[in-house]
Amino acid sequence: MAGSSPCASCKLLRRRCAKDCIFAPYFPPEDPHKFAIVHKVFGASNVNKMLQELPVHQRADAVSSLVYEANARKRDPVYGSVGIIFYLQNQISQLQMQLAFAEAEVLCIQMQQERSLANQHVIDIHEPSSLFCATASPAFLNP
Amino acid sequence: MAGSSPCASCKLLRRRCAKDCIFAPYFPPEDPHKFAIVHKVFGASNVNKMLQELPVHQRADAVSSLVYEANARKRDPVYGSVGIIFYLQNQISQLQMQLAFAEAEVLCIQMQQERSLANQHVIDIHEPSSLFCATASPAFLNP
Repeated sequence: MAGSSPCASCKLLRRRCAKDCIFAPYFPPEDPHKFAIVHKVFGASNVNKMLQELPVHQRADAVSSLVYEANARKRDPVYGSVGIIFYLQNQISQLQMQLAFAEAEVLCIQMQQERSLANQHVIDIHEPSSLFCATASPAFLNP
Repeated sequence: MAGSSPCASCKLLRRRCAKDCIFAPYFPPEDPHKFAIVHKVFGASNVNKMLQELPVHQRADAVSSLVYEANARKRDPVYGSVGIIFYLQNQISQLQMQLAFAEAEVLCIQMQQERSLANQHVIDIHEPSSLFCATASPAFLNP
């Protein structure tokens, strides 16, 4: 896959870029940072081994994920991509809580509606329904 | 930090475990797999450099995140921890959609309630409120 100029990997490692260079399809010379960051975090030898163990059609995705992880490690040297996982898990917990409250509010309003209809009473239109379910509505649902 | 037996890193690398070995506090000899997996994915030299660049109080967290990432890469050699990030991002999108529908349903029921009260009409109690908002309620909200 090597063209007239060596791929970014062979350039950085100062070696001849062979015709069947495993890095060449994924690390073009125009983007030297891509290999540099992967090399810094994983090491060229490890990346080589990881790619060798994969079928060719999965290697581009593997390189993308390694580049993503390496950049995450550069931005956050303590937590790397695991920091992103923590952040997303936290976001999921918050959304699950908000969803549970919203679904509880739906049920609460429906029950209130059915109860008031059953009693054939007309509720004062100015009374907001959120007041019926005050205990089920946290602050973020009533900004 | 090395005790009577060398740490897991020095044992694997077959070298003397110095008193100030950077790996010893985080890779005890009782858990050889922990270092082996990090060494396989990142390489001992890179892990050494990464730890050197961090203050001592952040190194334990960095090791934990490196071990997590390395295990994720072992489980999923193509996407590694990025596969987990994709999965969580997908879960967040689904929850955001469910939350938007639940909030729309709350608004829809409230509007319906206020409208019916304003008209002084009593709605048939057997008509579920989800029918009022049929277009706003996707299948997953009405299993």
